[in-house]
Amino acid sequence: MTRPDTTTAPNAGALTVNGDRLWRSLMDLAETGAYDDGRTGLRGVNRLALTDADAAGRRKVIGWMEQAGLAVRVDAMGNIYGRREGTDASAAPVLTGSHLDSVATGGAFDGCLGVLGGIEAVRTLDEHGITTRHPIEVAVFTEEEGVRFGTDMLGSAVAAGRIPLDHAHALTDREGRTLGAELARTGFAGPEGVRLSPPHAYVECHIEQGPVLADAGLDIGVVTGVQGISWQEITLHGRAAHAGTTPTRLRVDAGLAAARTVVHLRSMVDSGAYGDLRATVGHLTVHPDLTNIVPARAELTVDLRNPDDTHMARAEADLAASLRTLEAGTTGLTVATRRMARTAYVPFDEGVQHVIARAADDHGLEHISLLSGAGHDAQEIAALCPTAMIFVRGEYDGISHNPREYSTPEACAHGVDVLATTLLRLAGHGR
Amino acid sequence: MTRPDTTTAPNAGALTVNGDRLWRSLMDLAETGAYDDGRTGLRGVNRLALTDADAAGRRKVIGWMEQAGLAVRVDAMGNIYGRREGTDASAAPVLTGSHLDSVATGGAFDGCLGVLGGIEAVRTLDEHGITTRHPIEVAVFTEEEGVRFGTDMLGSAVAAGRIPLDHAHALTDREGRTLGAELARTGFAGPEGVRLSPPHAYVECHIEQGPVLADAGLDIGVVTGVQGISWQEITLHGRAAHAGTTPTRLRVDAGLAAARTVVHLRSMVDSGAYGDLRATVGHLTVHPDLTNIVPARAELTVDLRNPDDTHMARAEADLAASLRTLEAGTTGLTVATRRMARTAYVPFDEGVQHVIARAADDHGLEHISLLSGAGHDAQEIAALCPTAMIFVRGEYDGISHNPREYSTPEACAHGVDVLATTLLRLAGHGR
Repeated sequence: MTRPDTTTAPNAGALTVNGDRLWRSLMDLAETGAYDDGRTGLRGVNRLALTDADAAGRRKVIGWMEQAGLAVRVDAMGNIYGRREGTDASAAPVLTGSHLDSVATGGAFDGCLGVLGGIEAVRTLDEHGITTRHPIEVAVFTEEEGVRFGTDMLGSAVAAGRIPLDHAHALTDREGRTLGAELARTGFAGPEGVRLSPPHAYVECHIEQGPVLADAGLDIGVVTGVQGISWQEITLHGRAAHAGTTPTRLRVDAGLAAARTVVHLRSMVDSGAYGDLRATVGHLTVHPDLTNIVPARAELTVDLRNPDDTHMARAEADLAASLRTLEAGTTGLTVATRRMARTAYVPFDEGVQHVIARAADDHGLEHISLLSGAGHDAQEIAALCPTAMIFVRGEYDGISHNPREYSTPEACAHGVDVLATTLLRLAGHGR
Repeated sequence: MTRPDTTTAPNAGALTVNGDRLWRSLMDLAETGAYDDGRTGLRGVNRLALTDADAAGRRKVIGWMEQAGLAVRVDAMGNIYGRREGTDASAAPVLTGSHLDSVATGGAFDGCLGVLGGIEAVRTLDEHGITTRHPIEVAVFTEEEGVRFGTDMLGSAVAAGRIPLDHAHALTDREGRTLGAELARTGFAGPEGVRLSPPHAYVECHIEQGPVLADAGLDIGVVTGVQGISWQEITLHGRAAHAGTTPTRLRVDAGLAAARTVVHLRSMVDSGAYGDLRATVGHLTVHPDLTNIVPARAELTVDLRNPDDTHMARAEADLAASLRTLEAGTTGLTVATRRMARTAYVPFDEGVQHVIARAADDHGLEHISLLSGAGHDAQEIAALCPTAMIFVRGEYDGISHNPREYSTPEACAHGVDVLATTLLRLAGHGR
């Protein structure tokens, strides 16, 4: 991996995009796969990967790429690349992009902002008659959400070489249809080889999907990396007992053991001993779940996030030790754990972060550095080239994967201003 | 209420019943309403109150009462009384009994042991040619379980005057059938007035439905009273948030608040500050119950039991205060509570307990005094006359309301030996 030449265009001006045009494209795309969400009373988006709705959205976006003069190619994973040539035939492209697929009850911004922002940046370069030394490519990665075929960041993981193409093609949805067959059915089994030649750099603009920017009152986040994730399921087996007739000393209360685990996890976070650890118990059930029966069994999930793999490993080890202590201290209690998911921390490139921060400064936008708590295509492409991300503020505590997902037109335009300026500076003015 | 004359028959001998005959009647009755339980692979009992199965069981038992020479009457609640006359025409009867109805997945012993034990005691008196001064009556109370019509100890509560007959008749099952109509349909809308004249004393033999006797290695418990019960539902409202993107300081975690409540309840029990408090959180759910979403809402039930109403009230007040503290300490958290049930402690009569304990001694049976954690008809009849109960050991931690419910033939016989001897001593030898 070579570092991008971030001094290529030290004096390149800040590039301001057409925020109205960007917003219209976001709203237009959201009509493809739109549905009326009964729970929120809002209009939501359902474009699960490689469904008819997703294919329609892809065709719409390919049309916009072509209108913007991009040369479009599709690879064997259905990943789409729209290329704007540079002046240096030997230079690797500066890549941007994201995804168009959504969860079943999604919004208009997740993924789409990065793709449509990339196209808007190209339009703006064209309007200003700016050529760049490096080509600029806008990517659409397949099945980022992982909701339909079960593996997230799938298209970018195959492009980066982490997941083999054959494996991805053989993945099935709940109805047993393979991803390979769905690519063919929708016309997105492209002819291009899937392995991506290392780009010069990768920048992805994305909604934050969290509350940090809103809480800070800022529009722009410079993303320093993607936290490591550790998911496990813990099952505690105690003994069912009647709430009225069983003395406390004769109880083996699985629900109490689960509650102690939840409280202990928070004390681990609050101790500060594990760096910037986040711990969440989102799933918790007790059985038989009756008012007057001491729970015989409890099940919980533990979601740990940490930007430091050493801290993460120590948090996991200390949690495991606390479970052993709980087990040893309660006769009749047994604890079983099952690993659900585990990814390492992915740090982003400091040079690219610096270009993003300077671009924000030049647009007069305050910004902060923050971690991504969610996964993104950028964490896969980071294996190939210097990479970073731009986060855009979301309203309503940054709710996402929900029809309430919303970023203001101003916040979106600010994010794409920073994206366009960053792309220009990374690609360098043409000579 | 007058105290029973527990010195009526100070030298009356210990009465030993026919344990085989008792066991055969228990097993015979269990065939009525029997079903094959898929979950346990065992034969269970389903005799919900006033169903055809319950009516068949009642007719079988009435037949046994008549064979034992008892004069049977049925009141307007379907409560059945089988009377053996005494030698003193003016003396109030010594009452014994229990119920024949079961939960939907019940066993052979709950309730039945008390009714069939009473009949066996009468048979034994007859075989020994013993007359008593007070009459002895064996009662079958309607809808003790409360599973079908929603109110437990219903027949005995109406007999004791706590619940009006009209109210009971108007109660409906899930299909909308009234108890009154079901009494008529099954032929158990009897002609007798439902208000019970105060008996001389009431003694009920029942399986423990808990693990205390098994844990102590004893067959007999002398029941000192029925614990007060307090049930409430607590709903904690926080805010849903993404597990990866939401910093800990911005979370309002309803699941954590629920866990802290569970742990705090146990610390209240362990503190000893609330006497013999038992606290159970049997029901606990979080929403939306997803691995990577901080719970927006948690719901739990709190089941408190206490043999001291002052301790119970203080436990309730301190729990409420701890919830207010939790609410005040977490911006954005709100707590709602709903009272589900509340009954006061019912102490049993010390004189009757003493007769029971002495009877056990005279049979060479070790015994302990213990509280009832579950509700029984005895707690209603206790409003009318000196009352106590005899508990019989159950196997498998005293599991009940389950086809696994089991007490050995020996344990049942021992319990009914003590019952028969107690009834004789309370009723006094005829003169």
